[in-house]
Amino acid sequence: MRTPPQRGRRQGRTTSRELILGSARKLFAEHGYAATSLREIARDAGVDPAMVHHWFGGKEELFNACVELPADPAQVLGHVGELPAELRGEALLRALLTLWDSPAQPALLALLRNVTGSKAQAALIRQVLFKRMLALAMAGLPGSAAELERRGVLVASQMIGLMVARYLLRAEPLASAGHDELAALIAPVLQHYLTGPLPGTGSAVPGTGHG
Amino acid sequence: MRTPPQRGRRQGRTTSRELILGSARKLFAEHGYAATSLREIARDAGVDPAMVHHWFGGKEELFNACVELPADPAQVLGHVGELPAELRGEALLRALLTLWDSPAQPALLALLRNVTGSKAQAALIRQVLFKRMLALAMAGLPGSAAELERRGVLVASQMIGLMVARYLLRAEPLASAGHDELAALIAPVLQHYLTGPLPGTGSAVPGTGHG
Repeated sequence: MRTPPQRGRRQGRTTSRELILGSARKLFAEHGYAATSLREIARDAGVDPAMVHHWFGGKEELFNACVELPADPAQVLGHVGELPAELRGEALLRALLTLWDSPAQPALLALLRNVTGSKAQAALIRQVLFKRMLALAMAGLPGSAAELERRGVLVASQMIGLMVARYLLRAEPLASAGHDELAALIAPVLQHYLTGPLPGTGSAVPGTGHG
Repeated sequence: MRTPPQRGRRQGRTTSRELILGSARKLFAEHGYAATSLREIARDAGVDPAMVHHWFGGKEELFNACVELPADPAQVLGHVGELPAELRGEALLRALLTLWDSPAQPALLALLRNVTGSKAQAALIRQVLFKRMLALAMAGLPGSAAELERRGVLVASQMIGLMVARYLLRAEPLASAGHDELAALIAPVLQHYLTGPLPGTGSAVPGTGHG
């Protein structure tokens, strides 16, 4: 590790890193990931831009540090975006279940708790979830940006609800179901949201009732 | 309001009510609503059972006080259980949206935040959500208890995710969509979970891909 710049030893070291994180959280939440530059974050934090690179490397790493993501979205979901459209619902579900049923689970639960904490944190997580994670899973799907955004948020709504019900509320039989069972129950709905007919994009949803 | 029993004026008044609430929260969370009696709660709290009636009326009211429900589930959802099966998905969704887009919204958001707070609170909310609210909406639907439980938890997973995405994360376009638009997008999925073919209950879900 390189020698931290001055401003009072240990204390200055912690402080400049925390200052950068505070400014980054604020600006990412206010303006979004894409519209926020490392230079602006450095200016807001009152530090030299080189400090940001020193502590965090690049923008991606700084963002991940802000949200305390326990895994890199590109590693978890990158492969989903390379699959044919009709396989993505199940692949997305299985990728997230694999991640949640890993040693990362406590950190993910903490993240889920943060969603309900502060508004700024909710805005950050909205960025991660809707702009970055879903963009990876939906790369190359047909449809306008608006349609894909709508499909993405529907997918997210089902995924978030599943995670809350299974891991936070521990509601049975979802809590102890295996990945195959969950895939059979829920992947068709995710696939429907991803590529199925929605109002405004074609015909209505295929008949679903037997009652 | 009746005169509170003794044990030291105002202080005792607050204390006995709080003692009852504390015991009720603990026992409802541990044993569930059905298996917990007012007598057991009174014994655990070290008060006379008459005190429980005095402060809370009955078990239903005590339970609602424990969870701080901003509305009576029976009033919000009672009519859903009287509808034909094939109309319930949309009716359930509209009933919850009407409730959430009412002055009760701040209290509901607080409830949602509590889900992520303590384990005991999560257990209580699991009781409300899965045992009482869903039971109302699913009254009289065909299927075994196990099948209905599985269907109910799937319905809940989509509803919870929608509420988190729309009201907590404020993710567009869900956050500003009207009830008709949400009903068109999401009610078919709820209806599918309620009465459609699921693995283990018949054929697979009807084809959903167009990609």
